[in-house]
Amino acid sequence: MRTLEVCFSPAMLPYYDLEGKVVVVIDVFRASSTICVALANGVKEIIPVRDIEEARGYRDKGFLVAAERHGEMVDGFILGNSPLSFVGEQFSGQSVVLTTSNCTQAIHDVKEAHSIYIGSFGNLDLIAAHLLSMKEDVLLLCAGWRNKYNMEDTIFAGALIDILMPHFQMECDAALTSWHLYNMAKGNISEFLKSSSHAQRLRHLRIGADIEYCLTPNIAEVVPLFNGYSIMPV
Amino acid sequence: MRTLEVCFSPAMLPYYDLEGKVVVVIDVFRASSTICVALANGVKEIIPVRDIEEARGYRDKGFLVAAERHGEMVDGFILGNSPLSFVGEQFSGQSVVLTTSNCTQAIHDVKEAHSIYIGSFGNLDLIAAHLLSMKEDVLLLCAGWRNKYNMEDTIFAGALIDILMPHFQMECDAALTSWHLYNMAKGNISEFLKSSSHAQRLRHLRIGADIEYCLTPNIAEVVPLFNGYSIMPV
Repeated sequence: MRTLEVCFSPAMLPYYDLEGKVVVVIDVFRASSTICVALANGVKEIIPVRDIEEARGYRDKGFLVAAERHGEMVDGFILGNSPLSFVGEQFSGQSVVLTTSNCTQAIHDVKEAHSIYIGSFGNLDLIAAHLLSMKEDVLLLCAGWRNKYNMEDTIFAGALIDILMPHFQMECDAALTSWHLYNMAKGNISEFLKSSSHAQRLRHLRIGADIEYCLTPNIAEVVPLFNGYSIMPV
Repeated sequence: MRTLEVCFSPAMLPYYDLEGKVVVVIDVFRASSTICVALANGVKEIIPVRDIEEARGYRDKGFLVAAERHGEMVDGFILGNSPLSFVGEQFSGQSVVLTTSNCTQAIHDVKEAHSIYIGSFGNLDLIAAHLLSMKEDVLLLCAGWRNKYNMEDTIFAGALIDILMPHFQMECDAALTSWHLYNMAKGNISEFLKSSSHAQRLRHLRIGADIEYCLTPNIAEVVPLFNGYSIMPV
């Protein structure tokens, strides 16, 4: 039977074997949600880059670049990390370079995996169906917050596990905990998260609309795959 | 208000600020339980060492040495990591050197903290009361399993938080998750843990009696403090 694991932070990645595994990178608030929304709204590809310097390089070459650190848009860029910026057809067919606090590094951290997908509530059912159609073992990687654990990524991992569970062997305490937490939260995830640190942090930034959007299931029906350079729909 | 945080794995420690903090090291199955039981049964001190080589050095100097790796006693030593080995007066007044897979390294990893205590269900109420009597911020460090997250350490952290919560500020998603998980599990922790990976692993080693003992609250009423060399009751 295929195995299903969850890694709560990129800091713990050295202790997971990535070889031959399908990795789903999760950063619910907000990068993985934004990537799904952008691709579902016609963006051709997302090029994830680790640092601001690299992002500036792309910008100076004429690329459309979105840059966020610690929840805010970085000075000198015209886009941040809000999924709502990508709703509509305004960037259809374009390449978008993206750098964020946690997610874009996490994507590069798992380069040796068999394949790397992006998951969010926006593509919950579709990414689950895609994983079920494959044969490889699965690792769900929560991007977390500055290498610490966060609750929203865990709850999304739990939502995915809730669908995948019957088809996988799950000898992973992080996966079990994610599933338990999702089951506690699922009646009203937004309410459940109100006490969480990252949701509070984002509320201070007045992006409540983003939060609600990031928690809405199946509004970005796309399966984003990282090819080592950019993320494109399967 | 004092802050209360949980770190799910020694791998994430670099992202926590230890300065001025009181750290409680938790390794429910079984090292932190064993340390509490040994000290509550009259052992003078526990000297935690990182590796087997160092443990052999102590043994060759005539010390009583307990050594465990991956749940089993290491060849060449007369004690492993079972709390039941320390019930009774047989080692009263003695120094015991201890090396285990996860916990003894974690203790050394937090040396720069303000002070380092050992927590387990055995000393739950007493360690909670001691923390309440102090003034410093608190970090609960789960030793985990080979630097991965585990469920039993999280549930104990949640049990401690359940007592401490009204007196602390808790802007930490790992702390909130621990508390939620404890509340789900508290009716029957042993049953709740049956599906967890580490409990299954230990069951294969036929140490079911150890597991039940490690989950029994307040059977080792002692507050173990690490002084940089050895762990002794406060």
